[in-house]
Amino acid sequence: MSEPLQNDLLLRALLREPTPRRPVWLMRQAGRYLPEYRALRARAGGFLEMCTNPAIACEITLQPVDRYPLDAAILFSDILTIPHAMNLGLQFEAGEGPKFSKPVRSAADIDKLGVPDPGTELKYVTDAVALIRRELHGRVPLIGFAGSPWTVATYMVEGGGSKAFAVIKRMMYEAPRDLHRLLAILAKATISYLNAQIAAGAQAVMIFDTWGGTLTPAQYREFSLRYMAEVVDALTRQAQGRRVPNIVFTMGGGAWLSDIAAIGCDAVGVDWHTDLRTAREAVAGRVALQGNLDPAALFAPPEQLRAETLRVLESFGAGSGHVFNLGHGITPEVDPQRVALLIDTVQGFKPE
Amino acid sequence: MSEPLQNDLLLRALLREPTPRRPVWLMRQAGRYLPEYRALRARAGGFLEMCTNPAIACEITLQPVDRYPLDAAILFSDILTIPHAMNLGLQFEAGEGPKFSKPVRSAADIDKLGVPDPGTELKYVTDAVALIRRELHGRVPLIGFAGSPWTVATYMVEGGGSKAFAVIKRMMYEAPRDLHRLLAILAKATISYLNAQIAAGAQAVMIFDTWGGTLTPAQYREFSLRYMAEVVDALTRQAQGRRVPNIVFTMGGGAWLSDIAAIGCDAVGVDWHTDLRTAREAVAGRVALQGNLDPAALFAPPEQLRAETLRVLESFGAGSGHVFNLGHGITPEVDPQRVALLIDTVQGFKPE
Repeated sequence: MSEPLQNDLLLRALLREPTPRRPVWLMRQAGRYLPEYRALRARAGGFLEMCTNPAIACEITLQPVDRYPLDAAILFSDILTIPHAMNLGLQFEAGEGPKFSKPVRSAADIDKLGVPDPGTELKYVTDAVALIRRELHGRVPLIGFAGSPWTVATYMVEGGGSKAFAVIKRMMYEAPRDLHRLLAILAKATISYLNAQIAAGAQAVMIFDTWGGTLTPAQYREFSLRYMAEVVDALTRQAQGRRVPNIVFTMGGGAWLSDIAAIGCDAVGVDWHTDLRTAREAVAGRVALQGNLDPAALFAPPEQLRAETLRVLESFGAGSGHVFNLGHGITPEVDPQRVALLIDTVQGFKPE
Repeated sequence: MSEPLQNDLLLRALLREPTPRRPVWLMRQAGRYLPEYRALRARAGGFLEMCTNPAIACEITLQPVDRYPLDAAILFSDILTIPHAMNLGLQFEAGEGPKFSKPVRSAADIDKLGVPDPGTELKYVTDAVALIRRELHGRVPLIGFAGSPWTVATYMVEGGGSKAFAVIKRMMYEAPRDLHRLLAILAKATISYLNAQIAAGAQAVMIFDTWGGTLTPAQYREFSLRYMAEVVDALTRQAQGRRVPNIVFTMGGGAWLSDIAAIGCDAVGVDWHTDLRTAREAVAGRVALQGNLDPAALFAPPEQLRAETLRVLESFGAGSGHVFNLGHGITPEVDPQRVALLIDTVQGFKPE
């Protein structure tokens, strides 16, 4: 039996319940900007080795929570765990990003894909979740996550990261049914993966649609949003007597916030290209909002960082339903002292 | 004296005058997807050598116009000609993109920058423009161009291409006055550069703001749009007895189309993330629109490419003021036959 949650600000804000102040966490808060992360990485070997080792994943997850008074922990993992479990030969080469030695390019490649069993093939993730929950001792909630089907598919089809997305877009135009088949498999895999994380103890879940913003509006609805809607629809809503909120974040999706809010998610992530005021008008009270400080603001001198942080807090306006975050992941070059200032500014903010 | 213009559809559409059909040209239409370009490049040496040689720049500019019934030619050049003229040690390494050996990082670096004289330091560009005009024999209008001050500044400050724009964003927060000083110099340089292109024969001009979309809405207005407004304001409006229309294109600027339309430009470029219907509502008849087929649609089989092209044409709706284009530059892997089909589809389109 897990210990009672001492700080539930995140869960309440994600459900648009009133909170005495705005909760704050940061995308990629467990990461390279922290000296303790770099030290552990130097010992632990490769990135994939760290993700697949529950004890290490737990230690990294807790690093920022131990250092800062953050209002949430987020599982240290990667959006490519699912295709990794599909045996596509995932490797992270130093400074190169992910590469698949067996990219998915044809109908025959798709035929070979099965939905991974989270209880066995992704057990290292659920083990990490359970361990982190134990080690957190109820301090803050733990967020689980997955990549969106579209975003994960881009890596599988391109064979790694991409700029032009030429291979998957060619598939989209030449063989849309194959791509839909791939996305349907990924949606199924994402559902069982996220529900396994929830069963293991994740108290909120987030779907990262890093590459949805590379699509046209019609393509976004057909190839990305539709499958995130399937996932959201099938998520476990209640665990350990408490609602498990979910967050959907499409990078570059500022124009589609209203469409995202309509799929039934609890909260929508907003990148820094859209003002929260505009975002709030777009979602019209249907969801909470999470975001959206420009990650580069962490390079600003203290006074400017404080001012930018306050500007974001004020741009949301009064009322509940705002989780403070960056508009994208924190960058490795950031000074950890600036992160402390950011968190302090958010937590000290009282809207008049 | 130059020969009379036989096809002025582009100029008329950019000024929202009625045209019997929609004009079409493609961003980066003179480029690597063309075998004749690759052949010339193999002979001519490096990219910079081709840009700075008027005869070669002319030959490349004409290649797509000779091959296809395009409605415009666009000068073959680069957005980094201005910082190249500032002697910052620009190099294009194969497959690496541009690099500056002397990036602009400090107030002292900015102090050293002068506004290049287009009549001497950029004479190779105006010579190319004049030569292209001669060789075009009035077939179609010639578009000149420049990068936006913000976009050119990103390369100068980062020292090349970037993903996170950490260096220039740090300057933005730490030393905004220095950055404004740099942008003001670039705005001045851009004005004299574009006006020199117009004096040499450019019949329309375009400002490419490739990286404006990396900013927050407030940063965009302060650091990018403001300087494009300065440029637009100072452009020569009339040459050889004819109005010289201008086009402003911010990649990723879909949310700011209304702001762009308000700076007094004639036309606004739209990337493929925004429907032209939505874009047209946003600009409310103040400007023409240029765009916006997903460049990856050129990988589609012929029927799908045709359907996507028609979808874009129809999304603009009835009435004048649409120049068909891609939503971004054409990619090198495209089959030239597909480009022929695209142009044919646009030129055969008659709105009911």
